[in-house]
Amino acid sequence: MTKDVEVAEHHGGKDYHDPPPAPLIDGEELTKWSFYRALIAEFIATLLFLYVTVLTVIGYKVQTDPKLDTDQCGGVGILGIAWAFGGMIFVLVYCTAGISGGHINPAVTFGLFLARKVSLIRALGYMVAQCLGAICGVGLVKAFQSSYYNRYGGGANELADGYNKGTGLGAEIIGTFVLVYTVFSATDPKRSARDSHVPVLAPLPIGFAVFMVHLATIPITGTGINPARSFGAAVIYNNEKAWDDQWIFWVGPFIGAAVAAFYHQFVLRAGAIKALGSFRSNA
Amino acid sequence: MTKDVEVAEHHGGKDYHDPPPAPLIDGEELTKWSFYRALIAEFIATLLFLYVTVLTVIGYKVQTDPKLDTDQCGGVGILGIAWAFGGMIFVLVYCTAGISGGHINPAVTFGLFLARKVSLIRALGYMVAQCLGAICGVGLVKAFQSSYYNRYGGGANELADGYNKGTGLGAEIIGTFVLVYTVFSATDPKRSARDSHVPVLAPLPIGFAVFMVHLATIPITGTGINPARSFGAAVIYNNEKAWDDQWIFWVGPFIGAAVAAFYHQFVLRAGAIKALGSFRSNA
Amino acid sequence: MTKDVEVAEHHGGKDYHDPPPAPLIDGEELTKWSFYRALIAEFIATLLFLYVTVLTVIGYKVQTDPKLDTDQCGGVGILGIAWAFGGMIFVLVYCTAGISGGHINPAVTFGLFLARKVSLIRALGYMVAQCLGAICGVGLVKAFQSSYYNRYGGGANELADGYNKGTGLGAEIIGTFVLVYTVFSATDPKRSARDSHVPVLAPLPIGFAVFMVHLATIPITGTGINPARSFGAAVIYNNEKAWDDQWIFWVGPFIGAAVAAFYHQFVLRAGAIKALGSFRSNA
Amino acid sequence: MTKDVEVAEHHGGKDYHDPPPAPLIDGEELTKWSFYRALIAEFIATLLFLYVTVLTVIGYKVQTDPKLDTDQCGGVGILGIAWAFGGMIFVLVYCTAGISGGHINPAVTFGLFLARKVSLIRALGYMVAQCLGAICGVGLVKAFQSSYYNRYGGGANELADGYNKGTGLGAEIIGTFVLVYTVFSATDPKRSARDSHVPVLAPLPIGFAVFMVHLATIPITGTGINPARSFGAAVIYNNEKAWDDQWIFWVGPFIGAAVAAFYHQFVLRAGAIKALGSFRSNA
Repeated sequence: MTKDVEVAEHHGGKDYHDPPPAPLIDGEELTKWSFYRALIAEFIATLLFLYVTVLTVIGYKVQTDPKLDTDQCGGVGILGIAWAFGGMIFVLVYCTAGISGGHINPAVTFGLFLARKVSLIRALGYMVAQCLGAICGVGLVKAFQSSYYNRYGGGANELADGYNKGTGLGAEIIGTFVLVYTVFSATDPKRSARDSHVPVLAPLPIGFAVFMVHLATIPITGTGINPARSFGAAVIYNNEKAWDDQWIFWVGPFIGAAVAAFYHQFVLRAGAIKALGSFRSNA
Repeated sequence: MTKDVEVAEHHGGKDYHDPPPAPLIDGEELTKWSFYRALIAEFIATLLFLYVTVLTVIGYKVQTDPKLDTDQCGGVGILGIAWAFGGMIFVLVYCTAGISGGHINPAVTFGLFLARKVSLIRALGYMVAQCLGAICGVGLVKAFQSSYYNRYGGGANELADGYNKGTGLGAEIIGTFVLVYTVFSATDPKRSARDSHVPVLAPLPIGFAVFMVHLATIPITGTGINPARSFGAAVIYNNEKAWDDQWIFWVGPFIGAAVAAFYHQFVLRAGAIKALGSFRSNA
Repeated sequence: MTKDVEVAEHHGGKDYHDPPPAPLIDGEELTKWSFYRALIAEFIATLLFLYVTVLTVIGYKVQTDPKLDTDQCGGVGILGIAWAFGGMIFVLVYCTAGISGGHINPAVTFGLFLARKVSLIRALGYMVAQCLGAICGVGLVKAFQSSYYNRYGGGANELADGYNKGTGLGAEIIGTFVLVYTVFSATDPKRSARDSHVPVLAPLPIGFAVFMVHLATIPITGTGINPARSFGAAVIYNNEKAWDDQWIFWVGPFIGAAVAAFYHQFVLRAGAIKALGSFRSNA
Repeated sequence: MTKDVEVAEHHGGKDYHDPPPAPLIDGEELTKWSFYRALIAEFIATLLFLYVTVLTVIGYKVQTDPKLDTDQCGGVGILGIAWAFGGMIFVLVYCTAGISGGHINPAVTFGLFLARKVSLIRALGYMVAQCLGAICGVGLVKAFQSSYYNRYGGGANELADGYNKGTGLGAEIIGTFVLVYTVFSATDPKRSARDSHVPVLAPLPIGFAVFMVHLATIPITGTGINPARSFGAAVIYNNEKAWDDQWIFWVGPFIGAAVAAFYHQFVLRAGAIKALGSFRSNA
């Protein structure tokens, strides 16, 4: 509270604090422990994300395989898989938000980089850490489920039969747009200061956005919307079809994130700044 | 906090701030960028809402069709469909609350208009934006699922066999009442100022209200409670039965919203104002 | 915040405010509109609770009846039914907390009466309003599902085959204990003032407690833990077995609520008051 | 707020308050009622945790047994079981956080002991209370489900066929790491003071972490990550296989908790302290 008042004083008419754009290359960043700590946090979080979610996928397919003597309705279901992806993002964004910002996804990092929230060096470092974490996470699943991992598709993202590449790309673009738009909305500094009737419990809607997109697009692409997730599974599964479709899961999410960044920064926030005077006068 | 104190000073005995009723026609509104920004936000949000939810419905029906060689237990289930509707409303109300108020539903806009929270011009503008967004969202689903969209009912709301029109209308009225009553409860300015033991995380209960109503009434009407959702699906599906039943999904939600607005403004809040003196004296 | 400071000043060493015990009979209460408003809110909330939940139960049983030509896995599942009960309690407690306290359950009212949080007159008034609301809610379901309501058990609570009355009573006692213990924990005035790392979003854990108990005891009793819910269904279904077992769904919840009130007031809070000095000195 | 300001004054540059490490043996603790009250709260909470979750497991297996004349899709599903574990942890951590800290799990207690958040005496006392509570909770389930309890595996944790002991141990280590890492993140005193865009609703992500780990590892070990849960079920079920595998459910969670404590205290927080100066200067 004391801090808010201070902010209001420093910035005159505004009651919130827009941090200055991050520099493209911030050499000083590399000298700080907090930067390397953030890389470690992103690595561990993406590792845990892939470990839990791909283990859920493989376990589900084992439990419901009609060739095995199992109950076909016995697994957690596609609903359970969607919960695993969304719920882990909720938990991990919650845990790492204070350390690294809680990206756990190169598309989110890319969107925040475009909006000048993180520097180029940090963005690249995060993406490398996320991809390495994803590979290790899926590798653990393969080690634990050695007899089932390859048989049940390795948790890799592939375009399903009957859908063309344009549809897959479109599904990835819109799905990532939903996620990155939610990330921008949830972390907007204007919100915490002003919208008292919409408190900002940021990680929960972000996790729900991931959950929702999985419900909708698992039948089409298995749902990527996270290049590190798709890349890590492709590296460990190492299947030709997974590599052939891999570009969809990088191009789609990056386009979706860019559109979301544009929408938030130029449509929603630009307007916000222009309209500020009028907003205040009838508040 | 500083703001609350200020409010209390300005309004004498009250520690909350009831905004004055919105004018019926506010010409000045049309000159502000924030008005057009709100229309864009409602359009995009309703588009994403229909895209994700109808895609989930179609995907579920493909996965569980006994005529295809699929696992009948394999889809997300009706529970997953109900989550898609409720969860998307949670995410989208969260994202757009600060821009447009987060209606995403003509019935909600109608209820808030009756309670004089939005002007007539804003209400009409929102409804048009919502209907256009819904049409585009369902259109995307048809483009992505071209081989399945028409075969599996197009996500349209229709009265199920064995239920008469009165039942369908009643289900829509009560379902919308639950939703709009929750919206009014969640955005009541009295709450944020006073009920310290019931913090106002508004979008979550609103999303849950939608989720609950879908669990209950999917077997009867497929659950509308949102005329834009029913209209968008009817336009793209363009089936005679969907158009014949369409009136139920406008009349029902509008009656439900009107009853909820009446209940909140005249029963709950009117009493609140009268009882204020006595409440304060033994608080 | 201003208020907290004030409270701290008024009460010396304590930074929270324990309201004085409610009188047994408070004649003045009957002269206030806020009392009748609370009765209306409890009536409407219990009506909506039973309407949505019993409609979900009947709809599920229609969808999965092997005698009809339906997909046996098609309904919302028992998980969906448990969500309907828990989710509606979350939404309705959220909506009515500021008006009536959000009981929606005679056992909760009984527990809070024992802890002297509500007067005897208010407790009796709430219970009557809740029972009437429950009857009307189930009545609506019967009207809407006339061809299925009686065939599928009417949503009534009955002891399942293979369980004796002692087990059913025990399940109701422990289930209600979980619910009422959560209610006491969530509304403890000590919490909102002090536990800054455990913010009090009261309705959500209360709804989850109901959800959890339903997952566990639906196979035994169908899960009552709410005498109004069991009574309303019994009145409308009017089946001999439902009436024979009815006492379990009043005696069990009332014992469970009484034990929870005792546990919170005499074990947890009494200790809290005694230990206050020592707690403060090493805080 | 007043308190925060005070803290800031007392501690100079820091705006949060790191409590001093708990002593190994705190004799004074034994003289306080609050210590015994915390033991009672841990006992009751673990009892309720095991009662609800194991009752859900047994009920699910009864409902879906193909040998009985039941609907194989009728139970709550593995998804429902995962919800029961995660949801109960959410509710019970919420309820007991203010009394005992809400551990309900010897692995959590062990992790917090290693991080010097609780004394050795308190840690041992909690573990005994948790194990006794778990035994009583499962005992109640056996009493209520006498005809089914032993037939359906007693809710005990056992390594599934086809997985070796190393895999089971690894799954328990990583699963407990996810849980205890979330506990540390959620209760970090730095968060409540500073991260205004990530409000700390601690019990919800903790419950979700438990939910997620169950989705992933139920097919491998049935998911322990809580030695009291595994021990209580083993005592009541008293089956040779359950006792043979029991060490996995103590060694795994304790290693996982130790790694999480190390990760949080030495990687994330140690860095936090070193980086504080630089963080502040560009904040």
